[in-house]
Amino acid sequence: MKIFRYEFQGEVKYGILEEEYLRELECSPFENIRPGKTKVKISEVRILAPSQPSKVVCLAYNFRAHAQEMGKKVPEEPVFFFKPPSSLIAHLEPIKLPEKIGRVDFGGELAVVVKERFRNLPVDFEFEKYILGFTIINDITARDIANREGPFGKAKAFDTFTPAGPCILRGDKYRTFKLKTFLNSKIKQSSSMSNMIFPVNYSISYLSNIMTFEPGDIISFGTPGGVDEIKPGDRIDVQIEEIGILSNPVIKEVSHEDIP
Amino acid sequence: MKIFRYEFQGEVKYGILEEEYLRELECSPFENIRPGKTKVKISEVRILAPSQPSKVVCLAYNFRAHAQEMGKKVPEEPVFFFKPPSSLIAHLEPIKLPEKIGRVDFGGELAVVVKERFRNLPVDFEFEKYILGFTIINDITARDIANREGPFGKAKAFDTFTPAGPCILRGDKYRTFKLKTFLNSKIKQSSSMSNMIFPVNYSISYLSNIMTFEPGDIISFGTPGGVDEIKPGDRIDVQIEEIGILSNPVIKEVSHEDIP
Repeated sequence: MKIFRYEFQGEVKYGILEEEYLRELECSPFENIRPGKTKVKISEVRILAPSQPSKVVCLAYNFRAHAQEMGKKVPEEPVFFFKPPSSLIAHLEPIKLPEKIGRVDFGGELAVVVKERFRNLPVDFEFEKYILGFTIINDITARDIANREGPFGKAKAFDTFTPAGPCILRGDKYRTFKLKTFLNSKIKQSSSMSNMIFPVNYSISYLSNIMTFEPGDIISFGTPGGVDEIKPGDRIDVQIEEIGILSNPVIKEVSHEDIP
Repeated sequence: MKIFRYEFQGEVKYGILEEEYLRELECSPFENIRPGKTKVKISEVRILAPSQPSKVVCLAYNFRAHAQEMGKKVPEEPVFFFKPPSSLIAHLEPIKLPEKIGRVDFGGELAVVVKERFRNLPVDFEFEKYILGFTIINDITARDIANREGPFGKAKAFDTFTPAGPCILRGDKYRTFKLKTFLNSKIKQSSSMSNMIFPVNYSISYLSNIMTFEPGDIISFGTPGGVDEIKPGDRIDVQIEEIGILSNPVIKEVSHEDIP
């Protein structure tokens, strides 16, 4: 089951995909996943980022190949950082590169959306009770800033630097998922989600022993090897077949000064 | 004018301090600061953290003395990190130290609460239009974890690691504010807010050129020199006379396993 968050006729809704239609949910999926009677063509809605999280937590160096290409050791415990919710954009929205920012990289990742508030979960927690489902994020990083000022603050905080979506896939199985990232249709990343150093359940349990999670919160599980540079005019697609394709164009940010 | 966020008879409200009373606002202070007719004794309410932010942004090494004690150079541009909203607690709530966490430090800071959505503000922006007012935070850091894994991820993310409050002071002047931190009534930090490397207005403008801010968001301006360790049984008070005292006891976290 694929759950989309979307805007239709000025209202924000959640709905379930049925062929080319979205069947509107009767209430928020964080309360109950109850399909209603109204449906609308997916081509007629604007797809939104999958949730409005109170936080976005991202694991770092959770794939050996990426840790290596960054010159980092494989961590002994999950290492993570926060991206501000203001950096989220939806499927098809443009990633905006500010001027003079230097090199900027993509990084496709498997992520989850939290369903129910939790803290201190064991590793074998009841997955679908606490996790609404799987989604995709693209962890955009200003690499020159990261190299200069550290990887986890400014470098990842810019507006539009966290594309997320296109939808939320219900379920608890992900180890057979393959993530592929295409830059202008050329394959750049390709990895099985079974290659994670800290698996999804372990990581969620680990994080939940540090902090409380709220409905809508996003947890992302790190990018595989193959991150590379994006430039204005590019299109970057992150695909996990079971979930879909998160596709975003890259454009130059028009700054205040440029506006006549 | 001091604005408090509080709970009274199960409802969350904002009110203005009038001697020992809080006069309830007619609507959210992010819409309009309009005092209503109801008032309640402050001793009868539970004071809450000043807002429910979509993000908490903290400047690092923004006082020379603290940068020095951390062995860091004074930054050339503002350096910042995020704390998750789940780490916020109110005035008088306990800071809970998990077991086996090692050394944990306090760090008193001047902060602001955002009033209105903004992006790309100039340095001389209309302060009281965009900023609801000043508050205090205590940036709790697990120092051993910070030394081992880096200062900005896990080390600052634990639940209860961001006491904030006790209130929001309207106004745009802060350079004469003095921040003092007392550990069990012994003075540990004492600095004028004019000692900031990147002043409040400059920092807000700088950050707003990176990301969009939402009503309720908290921006904190760094801790002066004198950070030190806290232990269960301690009480830590951060005072800025014009705003008030943010006081929090420190206790040992009772883990799942400890609960019979």
